[in-house]
Amino acid sequence: MIRLAVDAMGGDDAPESVVEGVELARNERDDIEFLLFGDEKQIRPLLSDDKNIKIIQADEVITMEDEPVRAVKRKKNSSLVLAAKAVKNGDADALVSIGSSGALLVASLLILGRIKGIDRPGFTATMPVMNSDRGFTMVDAGANADAKVANIEQYALLGKYYSEHVSHVKNPRVGLINNGTEADKGDMIHRKMHDALQVMGDNGEINFIGNIESRELLNGVADVVVTDGFTGNAVLKSIEGTAMSIMGMLKDSIMHGGIKAKLGALLLKDSLKKMANKMDYKRYGGAVLLGIKSPVVKGHGNSDPKTVKYVLFNAAEIVKSGYVESVKNHFTKVAEEKAAEKE
Amino acid sequence: MIRLAVDAMGGDDAPESVVEGVELARNERDDIEFLLFGDEKQIRPLLSDDKNIKIIQADEVITMEDEPVRAVKRKKNSSLVLAAKAVKNGDADALVSIGSSGALLVASLLILGRIKGIDRPGFTATMPVMNSDRGFTMVDAGANADAKVANIEQYALLGKYYSEHVSHVKNPRVGLINNGTEADKGDMIHRKMHDALQVMGDNGEINFIGNIESRELLNGVADVVVTDGFTGNAVLKSIEGTAMSIMGMLKDSIMHGGIKAKLGALLLKDSLKKMANKMDYKRYGGAVLLGIKSPVVKGHGNSDPKTVKYVLFNAAEIVKSGYVESVKNHFTKVAEEKAAEKE
Repeated sequence: MIRLAVDAMGGDDAPESVVEGVELARNERDDIEFLLFGDEKQIRPLLSDDKNIKIIQADEVITMEDEPVRAVKRKKNSSLVLAAKAVKNGDADALVSIGSSGALLVASLLILGRIKGIDRPGFTATMPVMNSDRGFTMVDAGANADAKVANIEQYALLGKYYSEHVSHVKNPRVGLINNGTEADKGDMIHRKMHDALQVMGDNGEINFIGNIESRELLNGVADVVVTDGFTGNAVLKSIEGTAMSIMGMLKDSIMHGGIKAKLGALLLKDSLKKMANKMDYKRYGGAVLLGIKSPVVKGHGNSDPKTVKYVLFNAAEIVKSGYVESVKNHFTKVAEEKAAEKE
Repeated sequence: MIRLAVDAMGGDDAPESVVEGVELARNERDDIEFLLFGDEKQIRPLLSDDKNIKIIQADEVITMEDEPVRAVKRKKNSSLVLAAKAVKNGDADALVSIGSSGALLVASLLILGRIKGIDRPGFTATMPVMNSDRGFTMVDAGANADAKVANIEQYALLGKYYSEHVSHVKNPRVGLINNGTEADKGDMIHRKMHDALQVMGDNGEINFIGNIESRELLNGVADVVVTDGFTGNAVLKSIEGTAMSIMGMLKDSIMHGGIKAKLGALLLKDSLKKMANKMDYKRYGGAVLLGIKSPVVKGHGNSDPKTVKYVLFNAAEIVKSGYVESVKNHFTKVAEEKAAEKE
């Protein structure tokens, strides 16, 4: 049984959307146990069936308005803190929340802790590739806006192991987002990042393919896209915003285009649906916080129950994949090699 | 007569695409004179009619492989350098090229010079807004990857004047791309940029609306989008890439969707065409280098003749708008006020 600790009180429509999403997931799979942390009085009436679902009472909630560090330290009985502690104590295998990203980041750092060798965790988001069923993984999608070169080196490794274990890509191609593909492109920090990744590529630590441009991401130019959290966030939101705007414009145009346009849309339904599905980032299972000692998955705050289901399935996949253990092994080995060199 | 100095030898398909584009533009408007700098032996046979077109012989060409600073300094008889000198000497009103961005930037700096008060020029690109015929202006779209706070303050002013004069927006809303809308969002440098722009907003120098997210750009959240050149480049290319990928996927899906899909596409033709036009960045007239003493406009290297035409029209609009004079006046006034304060 895979055991997921779920913060039932985080998110715009919590606990309803979370509880419904958990039930959707449970109805499809019976290899997952769900530990729902939150207000039992609110959660119990929402449950139609408690098979494989356990409610653990949490008296407090961390809201979007709370300052993350203070909230995690003071609200010891909040749904998020109790869920994180359950993972820490070995009562659950992964932490899932659709609440405040900042609070989830802090709870993960303070309660679960970083993997030894990782200075700063990074969010990864999986994005679609047009001509392939397999998406690409972007690290960091926004956890660490002020990334340093050492962070980027670690993100490349975290992304590599994630791509191998969770997305099942062999020898994943790692690229750095830059403002041109040539090796000397970029501002000062991205030029240094490129050079550091190139050394890792030359060493065989990663399959580094060099600088890539954000224009090519959806064409599948790389399996692992490495970037600082500021740029990653901007690129991710640009892609999502453009996709939503185009879909919205097409929809509007069909709605106001009279019977001819509506008939056309009906005939084109399959194509339009395929496109909408491809670009529906909700299907991609949320953002995963890499570099923490246990899997941590974050869904959008506005996730509907179906989206919550995908986030839960993604968390279960990560647990099954053994991703975290591989990363731990890598950094333990590196530390041992360094210690041996010193002797 | 508006006089445009055109580098006829820059671009992937030069001089053909440039000369054809010039003829398209000339055939539509008779208030522009085109000075074509390049190899007359190549250009002359391509011209069907030389009305309002003058060829000025240039023996050299700066290529994409040339190192920009060295090329501009050494290739004194190149089409780009001679075109820039024509603007400098008052023989033309604006400089247009679809060749190397780096060389154009260097030629503009060394030959035309910066407006007093501007430390670093910035590229602006006009992008579409979904529910409006008016796009938004992004500065800097990639000229200055290592932007400092002072550069961003200047970009806000350059963008404001551009939006007012060229896009005819009254009191344009200026926003800063950041990883959240709250005032304290961002990495260290973007937090400082926000605070500096806020001071300008409080002073009434600009209509600053605060931080904006790249997700909202195509929804028209701001008229002037200010950003460092690294982020601006990444966001611009993400938007272009996503739009192209979605269009491409829809096209593929129609091509392989059998007769039903093809009929649907035929009925939906107007909607699809409207969408394709909206997202066709070639229609937006290239990137304009702001902060230089004369208008400088750069088209994509792969511009076809129609795109070249839009770039030329955009350059003509900028000349007519009096944009450069307004910026010069602003900074002259600021310098005088500062001098007066010192006395």
